[in-house]
Amino acid sequence: MSGIETLSEQICFDGVQGVYRHESEACAGPMRFALYQPPQAATGPCPVLYFLAGLTCTEETATVKAGAQRLAAQFGMVLVMPDTSPRETGIAGATGDWEFGEGAGFYVDATQPPYAARFNMHRYVVDELPALIAGQFPVDISRSSICGHSMGGHGALTIALRHPGRYRSVSAFAPIVAPSQVPWGQKALPRYLGNDPAAWADYDACELVRRRTFEGTILIDQGEADAFLERQLKPELFDQACAEAGQSLLLRRHRGYDHSYWFISSFIDDHLRHHARALGLV
Amino acid sequence: MSGIETLSEQICFDGVQGVYRHESEACAGPMRFALYQPPQAATGPCPVLYFLAGLTCTEETATVKAGAQRLAAQFGMVLVMPDTSPRETGIAGATGDWEFGEGAGFYVDATQPPYAARFNMHRYVVDELPALIAGQFPVDISRSSICGHSMGGHGALTIALRHPGRYRSVSAFAPIVAPSQVPWGQKALPRYLGNDPAAWADYDACELVRRRTFEGTILIDQGEADAFLERQLKPELFDQACAEAGQSLLLRRHRGYDHSYWFISSFIDDHLRHHARALGLV
Repeated sequence: MSGIETLSEQICFDGVQGVYRHESEACAGPMRFALYQPPQAATGPCPVLYFLAGLTCTEETATVKAGAQRLAAQFGMVLVMPDTSPRETGIAGATGDWEFGEGAGFYVDATQPPYAARFNMHRYVVDELPALIAGQFPVDISRSSICGHSMGGHGALTIALRHPGRYRSVSAFAPIVAPSQVPWGQKALPRYLGNDPAAWADYDACELVRRRTFEGTILIDQGEADAFLERQLKPELFDQACAEAGQSLLLRRHRGYDHSYWFISSFIDDHLRHHARALGLV
Repeated sequence: MSGIETLSEQICFDGVQGVYRHESEACAGPMRFALYQPPQAATGPCPVLYFLAGLTCTEETATVKAGAQRLAAQFGMVLVMPDTSPRETGIAGATGDWEFGEGAGFYVDATQPPYAARFNMHRYVVDELPALIAGQFPVDISRSSICGHSMGGHGALTIALRHPGRYRSVSAFAPIVAPSQVPWGQKALPRYLGNDPAAWADYDACELVRRRTFEGTILIDQGEADAFLERQLKPELFDQACAEAGQSLLLRRHRGYDHSYWFISSFIDDHLRHHARALGLV
């Protein structure tokens, strides 16, 4: 495929699970992504669900651990799992800290040097990757939905809220909903975006939903035994923001579940069904 | 738990996915295993399905990649995933070769020094582990079934054939069915069991099924794009041996599938259903 290097392709649920690499303009270097083609893709373009992963993860994590392919194959849905940041950037300070830099791109377009040259995961996910796969895979980009986990849940919510009409549905597992108000965001956002909190608001789901709501119900699952719940996630802030903004939100709290992919795999089917309905697949 | 150290326990499909360590008598050292308790285990003992993994794998591999917990939770089936060998044995020659030694125990009881002291995965899986978990988890050991992948498929078949009445059902993904006749077995079995092929026959499914058949249909799935198919797996040998012995066998060949866990996850539900029927769960 032009501009895309195939790293692996394996049959899975009668579809094709692949891992690919390409030269990214937004991130100014090579990027990897995983893409699952359901069996229906052999005969025509299929809608797309993006899954954005969290801190420390790569394109492999949700691909291997979420268990999304089974229902994607049933519904006829392409799954796209991008990496969480550019890699091997050579930027001082961009490695060695799991909460910032490589593996922690926070789905922003950085404005601050030296990160602005490489850390542009927002436009990578919203513009570059869809255009790339539209030309190379049997995807119907006009029918897209998005979900994510933790930092990737933050990515999914902020991207969906900022681009009305682009995504038919959005959901998240244990998302960061108010990065401006929690340590993860207060550490990463100034480095990527500068010290003015006004710039952070463009990447803060609680702020964004107050500007403009998302058409359709947002689905969020949260484990009550999640070690990051009280300090970093604070779903009650998004619950309140949605209530005030008139945003339809289905926030489900699950007793005993933690922040891991065991939690995600337990509820991924509900998310696939949520998106399949919005994408007209069921 | 007495004698068992809990390394982790996480909620998954409303059950508990755990990883444990204990001092093994059979393997003369610490052993790890993963065990999934379905939600039904909270109210009473549940039947058990063992999943034996293949070369290079650990107790983690099938646990994370097979996707077995979803239906196990539905059926009320405990899953037990042992490691594939003792570890850190300090035995010269037991590391550094993915086809032999640590990670490649081949589910035999070794008779040859220096391996005989530690590499006794057959009696570990058949006797020690069941007795251990029977005392510590809500399991109904009288209702057990067994399955496995590749070297672990060899383990499942040979163990089920050698212990009539012990397992209600047996299945395998891409198993080694004739280790005496293929390079993997011809390399490992002499080192564990000596040079007399008569000793190998006790761990060769094609030989064992001719001695005594298994009560019930054996289910085997095999990918036709499996890189090990022609040289190491040779399912046609078991097909022929079963036909000659009068053993009921359902051997399914799947176009395009390889040897990976993408293949396993695609068909694991059928195996869970096969075992659930034999265990009286459906």
